[in-house]
Amino acid sequence: MTEQVLDVIFAMPHPDDVEITCGGTVARLAKLGYRVGVLCLTNGEPTPHGSPEVRAQELAEAARILGVSLVQTLDLPNRELLDSLAARYAVATFLRRYRPRILVTLAGRTPAASPDHYQAQLIVEAARFYSQLTRWDERFDSMPPHRIDWLWYRPVHIAAEQMQWRGTFVVDVSDVYEQKLAAIAAYKSQFDEQRLERLLHRIRAFDAADGARAGFRYGELYAVPHAIPLTDPVAFFSALNPPQGPPTVQTR
Amino acid sequence: MTEQVLDVIFAMPHPDDVEITCGGTVARLAKLGYRVGVLCLTNGEPTPHGSPEVRAQELAEAARILGVSLVQTLDLPNRELLDSLAARYAVATFLRRYRPRILVTLAGRTPAASPDHYQAQLIVEAARFYSQLTRWDERFDSMPPHRIDWLWYRPVHIAAEQMQWRGTFVVDVSDVYEQKLAAIAAYKSQFDEQRLERLLHRIRAFDAADGARAGFRYGELYAVPHAIPLTDPVAFFSALNPPQGPPTVQTR
Amino acid sequence: MTEQVLDVIFAMPHPDDVEITCGGTVARLAKLGYRVGVLCLTNGEPTPHGSPEVRAQELAEAARILGVSLVQTLDLPNRELLDSLAARYAVATFLRRYRPRILVTLAGRTPAASPDHYQAQLIVEAARFYSQLTRWDERFDSMPPHRIDWLWYRPVHIAAEQMQWRGTFVVDVSDVYEQKLAAIAAYKSQFDEQRLERLLHRIRAFDAADGARAGFRYGELYAVPHAIPLTDPVAFFSALNPPQGPPTVQTR
Amino acid sequence: MTEQVLDVIFAMPHPDDVEITCGGTVARLAKLGYRVGVLCLTNGEPTPHGSPEVRAQELAEAARILGVSLVQTLDLPNRELLDSLAARYAVATFLRRYRPRILVTLAGRTPAASPDHYQAQLIVEAARFYSQLTRWDERFDSMPPHRIDWLWYRPVHIAAEQMQWRGTFVVDVSDVYEQKLAAIAAYKSQFDEQRLERLLHRIRAFDAADGARAGFRYGELYAVPHAIPLTDPVAFFSALNPPQGPPTVQTR
Amino acid sequence: MTEQVLDVIFAMPHPDDVEITCGGTVARLAKLGYRVGVLCLTNGEPTPHGSPEVRAQELAEAARILGVSLVQTLDLPNRELLDSLAARYAVATFLRRYRPRILVTLAGRTPAASPDHYQAQLIVEAARFYSQLTRWDERFDSMPPHRIDWLWYRPVHIAAEQMQWRGTFVVDVSDVYEQKLAAIAAYKSQFDEQRLERLLHRIRAFDAADGARAGFRYGELYAVPHAIPLTDPVAFFSALNPPQGPPTVQTR
Amino acid sequence: MTEQVLDVIFAMPHPDDVEITCGGTVARLAKLGYRVGVLCLTNGEPTPHGSPEVRAQELAEAARILGVSLVQTLDLPNRELLDSLAARYAVATFLRRYRPRILVTLAGRTPAASPDHYQAQLIVEAARFYSQLTRWDERFDSMPPHRIDWLWYRPVHIAAEQMQWRGTFVVDVSDVYEQKLAAIAAYKSQFDEQRLERLLHRIRAFDAADGARAGFRYGELYAVPHAIPLTDPVAFFSALNPPQGPPTVQTR
Repeated sequence: MTEQVLDVIFAMPHPDDVEITCGGTVARLAKLGYRVGVLCLTNGEPTPHGSPEVRAQELAEAARILGVSLVQTLDLPNRELLDSLAARYAVATFLRRYRPRILVTLAGRTPAASPDHYQAQLIVEAARFYSQLTRWDERFDSMPPHRIDWLWYRPVHIAAEQMQWRGTFVVDVSDVYEQKLAAIAAYKSQFDEQRLERLLHRIRAFDAADGARAGFRYGELYAVPHAIPLTDPVAFFSALNPPQGPPTVQTR
Repeated sequence: MTEQVLDVIFAMPHPDDVEITCGGTVARLAKLGYRVGVLCLTNGEPTPHGSPEVRAQELAEAARILGVSLVQTLDLPNRELLDSLAARYAVATFLRRYRPRILVTLAGRTPAASPDHYQAQLIVEAARFYSQLTRWDERFDSMPPHRIDWLWYRPVHIAAEQMQWRGTFVVDVSDVYEQKLAAIAAYKSQFDEQRLERLLHRIRAFDAADGARAGFRYGELYAVPHAIPLTDPVAFFSALNPPQGPPTVQTR
Repeated sequence: MTEQVLDVIFAMPHPDDVEITCGGTVARLAKLGYRVGVLCLTNGEPTPHGSPEVRAQELAEAARILGVSLVQTLDLPNRELLDSLAARYAVATFLRRYRPRILVTLAGRTPAASPDHYQAQLIVEAARFYSQLTRWDERFDSMPPHRIDWLWYRPVHIAAEQMQWRGTFVVDVSDVYEQKLAAIAAYKSQFDEQRLERLLHRIRAFDAADGARAGFRYGELYAVPHAIPLTDPVAFFSALNPPQGPPTVQTR
Repeated sequence: MTEQVLDVIFAMPHPDDVEITCGGTVARLAKLGYRVGVLCLTNGEPTPHGSPEVRAQELAEAARILGVSLVQTLDLPNRELLDSLAARYAVATFLRRYRPRILVTLAGRTPAASPDHYQAQLIVEAARFYSQLTRWDERFDSMPPHRIDWLWYRPVHIAAEQMQWRGTFVVDVSDVYEQKLAAIAAYKSQFDEQRLERLLHRIRAFDAADGARAGFRYGELYAVPHAIPLTDPVAFFSALNPPQGPPTVQTR
Repeated sequence: MTEQVLDVIFAMPHPDDVEITCGGTVARLAKLGYRVGVLCLTNGEPTPHGSPEVRAQELAEAARILGVSLVQTLDLPNRELLDSLAARYAVATFLRRYRPRILVTLAGRTPAASPDHYQAQLIVEAARFYSQLTRWDERFDSMPPHRIDWLWYRPVHIAAEQMQWRGTFVVDVSDVYEQKLAAIAAYKSQFDEQRLERLLHRIRAFDAADGARAGFRYGELYAVPHAIPLTDPVAFFSALNPPQGPPTVQTR
Repeated sequence: MTEQVLDVIFAMPHPDDVEITCGGTVARLAKLGYRVGVLCLTNGEPTPHGSPEVRAQELAEAARILGVSLVQTLDLPNRELLDSLAARYAVATFLRRYRPRILVTLAGRTPAASPDHYQAQLIVEAARFYSQLTRWDERFDSMPPHRIDWLWYRPVHIAAEQMQWRGTFVVDVSDVYEQKLAAIAAYKSQFDEQRLERLLHRIRAFDAADGARAGFRYGELYAVPHAIPLTDPVAFFSALNPPQGPPTVQTR
């Protein structure tokens, strides 16, 4: 266990999931000096124009652009991800090894897209629980227990509308926004020129709309499944200083 | 009652409300040949840099850009709009005179912004009901009853998140999008250059995000308070042909 | 792949599920000339008074009454249906073979009734995704990929009330309503006289109540997990002409 | 204060509102020997074919059919009902005079129909509060304070779907159902033959569908804004004995 | 099948789940003379300071304190509970053997805690369904079918807030409250002195807050997935007599 | 305008509303050195045992206990509060004079209690908007415009359950909890000994339950109608350090 710990781990099913949904936050945290890890539960293949090797190169390139400290891919099956004990063990072993304070995963069923997204949510939630359990180290490559204090959900924009999560907070990603777009563009095997243009149009819209909910030019939205504990709420709110002013206030 | 009837009326509290929320739909319907009316319940003044005369000119210019057939302003009080019998009569008289098939208004409380928005919703809903009532013509300048078959709500993006309406349908406004932006820019007394840039950034984001929910580049979202009645649902869905493909389908 | 394609496929766990929930829509679509398929994931047996042979005959008779073009039963286990890769493959192979534009399944957990309903929903959602995936044909009897543009959910009336789906549209089934009732009555092994009378009383009520939400005498309710994309919303709403008038409008 | 007290009061804006929404419950309670009162906040006129005199006769006839002990009409303005101190006083005076244990009113906004429904809800809620307040008797014709323990809401079926209330309990009205239909039919000035047929078709559907949620042939649905307090829940549930069996249980 | 039937069975994944969430109701029902059973799907071990033997002793002691008639532990795996046919059979066999009128289980996902809770809910729901099915006795140790009329859900307080269930009724546990606290304290291997103090502080708060929703000093909240069927609602509400008065009524 | 500005203003309809719902937060903020104001829209009288003079003394005593910097009572009518222009002006004048950064009010309809609560919410929301408007100073005693960046809602525990607001954050009030209880006890005219005991039992429960949602012994829950804007979310979450550990995490 000589590895250096990570501050935050983003765990999602496919290469490009983190970049598309949380790329701005990853770049922002790296810029602030935090050690950020990315865990892909599958290698994301097959796809129409990809291969495991090419996809791995693209993932590495995207990670480089965003400033990710460590990226790893598990060998769980793409398109066929299912919540299982083995999958939970694999993810939890990674969590015990790198001991983050914060864990991030997708939230929401995507019945019109891949069922992997929701299965990954179930696996990651269980793995976080497994990470802290005592008397079980033999299941996790002898890694000792580690409690992850905070779980952030990234609500899925393409989730069925009847199942969307509300968001709790928005991270300002305005000053790293070009990095996010470049990281997505690194997935050349996935997005040809026309497809990339459409995707970036859509992502820019989601991120600007979420940013607008909190007073930022571009923002990424997260949810926590509990209320935020504050001890000095006046200091907290006074320190918030979104460049476009507090959200949803009309000044006329 | 020699006035020509209108196909659709957009009734909202202030000049620029229709342009900001529904400007693309107005332009699209005008382009398709429909007669569209805009009713402002107030003249929108005072504002920091406006005057009733200037605001009226801006409203007229925006209407011209969008292709509005008829625009009218009632003399209800800006900032102090309250649901009342007099306000209901004033709006209903307009509805009886111009006899639209469809009526559009804002939906949602905006507790962080003007209380006028929600009061206007209440007034317009009641006016629609008053429009169809018999044995009451003397209250409405002798205009005879008129039933408006369809009410479309335009959910307010700045509404408190805990009170948002779900949308039912999205109108494709991609091919008239520049007109919408130009109509908003016509309100020079309201938006200086910096403010306009921020507002358009935000509106483009909302409209592209709502469009993405339905497969369009830019779209405006509406809600109806009932289920859509269909007699041949296969023909209906088969005819839908959003240029970016059906919504929320991943093709990899 | 010499089979003729189907326009719409209704995929549900048990014989009689389609008839009870969507029988009117099936009959209506068949009458309009569409090719409709019914896929039963299980043979529905054992039941107290049924057998696989009798149930298959009843299913065939119901299909004949409704005008179904093709009906097929998979050999997945009744009462013990679980989302699994094998079940997903079996359904997806059927979808690739018959290439529908529209796929219909149940939506909603039914914790007080059979767990099969929700498991079937999960299987069918995943199978729709599998249907369109490239480089996987060997899993699906060499059937090539097929993208199904539209997924309709049929919300389950007996779902736990805390988990009900809202509906998006209602199909007018008034003119084929007797066919629906006759198709249900074909399941003689399932419903004795007293039980049938109660069931039809209840179904008539649900269908008339759902119809009332949209202005029809009898209607069946469906949900889509996205907003409806419209390019000419005025033409669309003007063409809607429910015989009992637009929904929820009082004319006094 | 020589009037005899009432057990339950149904307070709604128009004659026929109680009959259409709660007629079965009224008849059922009267049959059980309870003293039931009906309070109409307005006389319901004008309508296309009605007059105050005719409407009053119809109201009396409907009350007779249902077994109502006392019916009264306030002179608040139909179509123009607004929550106001005067309206609250008028209703509260009635409540203090007749001292019911239970008060019933409509719940839900009906933006596509009369705004009176929601205004009546606001008035009745406030009147219930006013009824119990001390040191205010002079406002209420010197009637002393009276606390009404229970408020039942009757969710409005035609409410905007996005604003519907969930129900808490369903009252079995199967054995008095013909009385309900007859009471509605008493409003000859409101419903000609064709209109009556359509209305009864729809009401039968709503009541049978609501009944089905609780195991009754016909039922009327109510909501309370709190949880039900029980001291012996086993006895309570064991005594429930809906003739069609417990709700939503499949017996195959 | 010489065992004596049980009136109510509480089925949850771990020893101490029933005591913490429903201990007051168990004690109350036992005091009223009902036969109450507790089914633990797992033995709850390993935990940091427990062992199967110690945990079983604590469970027995807690059951004694509450007056439980029968307690049983299945050998399903703690921390690794998954909905499966075998788990369903095991629970359903117990239900067929002891034939309760009412079955109680937890409701709600607990993504920040053990995934066992939600898996147990799925298993118990399916087991209740399996319990009543004919022609399947061989799967259940030859126990004949048994229909359980009522399913009560106990909403989980630590569930993600975005997924909480609403409650339907609250059971008054004020007069047995010390028994509940003592039963929890029996789990000495799980809660040292400091941890126990914190836990009891929290549980007292939840139970007093839920009690307040229904007029009790301490109460436990339950949900049913349907509306409550009532035949004489006036008698029912009149008999409710919470010692602190009807819920949420201000008497000033 | 020589008055000293306030950091936070709590604006509610009656004396004792602030103490009961937010008393811990007020005491906590005062202890942290913030200047806190309390605005009562009415004097709260008549009540059974109160008088305007006694109530004012109690309010002053409670304010002293909590460390309030300034308390003021408007002369709007208790029990008869209605959203109106005059009420909005009165509150907005106070806001312009004392220029807080944060404004707090109740949120939620309380149909089983006083209608004043919701009317006060409407008045305060509008007054906040009026506070920032230019060219209107003459309406507000010549006080210049003032924009209040943040609005905190305090969800009402006695609100109808179907209308509750979700909370966003919880303020730790553990170390000032006795002050809160003492401030409530100062209202001797409102709560005799028995009533006070019951009230404090209930309030302790609500506050401990809300605290438990965020890891505090006692907490008060607030909602904001937007997402929280964060620029360094890792630093923010890392600094959160609730003494009972992060919320809803099980450590076994």
